[in-house]
Amino acid sequence: MSGLMSAEELEARLREVGAERYHSLHPFHKLLHSGALNKGQVQAWALNRFCYQSAIPRKDAALMSRTFDRELRREWLRRITDHDGLGEEEGGIERWLILTDGLGLDRDYVISMQGALPATRFAVEAYVRFVRENTLLEAVASSLTELFAPEIHRQRIAGMLENYDFIDDSVMPYFRRRLKQAPRDVAFALDYVKQNARTPDAQTAVVEALTFKCNVLWSQLDALYFAYVEPGFVPPGAFRPEETHG
Amino acid sequence: MSGLMSAEELEARLREVGAERYHSLHPFHKLLHSGALNKGQVQAWALNRFCYQSAIPRKDAALMSRTFDRELRREWLRRITDHDGLGEEEGGIERWLILTDGLGLDRDYVISMQGALPATRFAVEAYVRFVRENTLLEAVASSLTELFAPEIHRQRIAGMLENYDFIDDSVMPYFRRRLKQAPRDVAFALDYVKQNARTPDAQTAVVEALTFKCNVLWSQLDALYFAYVEPGFVPPGAFRPEETHG
Repeated sequence: MSGLMSAEELEARLREVGAERYHSLHPFHKLLHSGALNKGQVQAWALNRFCYQSAIPRKDAALMSRTFDRELRREWLRRITDHDGLGEEEGGIERWLILTDGLGLDRDYVISMQGALPATRFAVEAYVRFVRENTLLEAVASSLTELFAPEIHRQRIAGMLENYDFIDDSVMPYFRRRLKQAPRDVAFALDYVKQNARTPDAQTAVVEALTFKCNVLWSQLDALYFAYVEPGFVPPGAFRPEETHG
Repeated sequence: MSGLMSAEELEARLREVGAERYHSLHPFHKLLHSGALNKGQVQAWALNRFCYQSAIPRKDAALMSRTFDRELRREWLRRITDHDGLGEEEGGIERWLILTDGLGLDRDYVISMQGALPATRFAVEAYVRFVRENTLLEAVASSLTELFAPEIHRQRIAGMLENYDFIDDSVMPYFRRRLKQAPRDVAFALDYVKQNARTPDAQTAVVEALTFKCNVLWSQLDALYFAYVEPGFVPPGAFRPEETHG
């Protein structure tokens, strides 16, 4: 079990992790895409997910700050500009705010993250810290959930447009753009991991990094489910759909 | 002495730090620009300075990884692309390698940093660590040596072209580009510091951050002087001009 895998075996093992653990399997995800949530629950999802979106450039900058390899930095930079934008290009965080605007959430309230669940913030910051503190190889490997993202984005676009009358095409640019960006990024990261995980220990660390990242995503949906679906215990200070914001 | 300064007083105090401590005052700098060094000494300077140049994107990424402020990240990103390049644009590190190429140094040897002085590496990594670990305000303030850089770059272009027959215009693009980039960057950083250092303690921290950064630059020239000018004790393993590399 602890022998050296070929690059292909390692990739297969990583895809297995996704098949078992990616958050597309989470009950909250199924509710979201099938139209079973009410508007307040979708708002709660979008404003919590903002914490994750807006942390991505910080974690990618943390990764860049750790490598002496200029080519790796040049490649990785695109992830930051995809989210923060560059010059006239607004970036993915702005596109996410178009979604939260469209859902009727006050933009300053969303950006303040005051209404986010503490568990969301803990999970997101655990991810930033993981990238800052673990090996560079593990940091790269933790991005590999993008292997599984295009499918979830396709489901999201179709499911949300079809099932919610408070969502229309004008708020979906984030997901449409990610359909193009994620495959390009993940091809690089997957290749990097396959090239650089050349010992059994390194391969184990890579698989564990992806598992960790799946947990980061999964636990955010656990927290949403617990607070906003069942049993519906909203923690003190967190967003309450029945209140107006803005 | 520990009262709150106005923004203008703070700026004046910062400019005083530069007037007292910027490495343009260092004896090695004067030798370099006046044509008093031989080619081996200029090679030693260029290959040691590469360590600093190539660390800049890491320290700027470290700063970006620490801020939740998207506008600050978007602004700061340009410093990374100035050094690492973006797409077709080669960036300042590549321009620095054109200089070391022109000085007859093997590019792989320069990039490996194997010939750099340990004191250079320590100073440079102290800077990266400072930005990673101190307050965001101090991290921004530590960039303010750029207030004093255009003058040194102008002296360098004129002095080096005039005084060394082994240096011609083809290797100077790094300095020419920095003449344009540094003033633009520093205007933002200076404004940020003036806006955000609003207590006596914060202002003291800002002045100390700039002092620290001046020390980072100064100590690199001390190490060069000691190893390659007087007394000329090259540490074990460090670059020796009389040896050929590449």
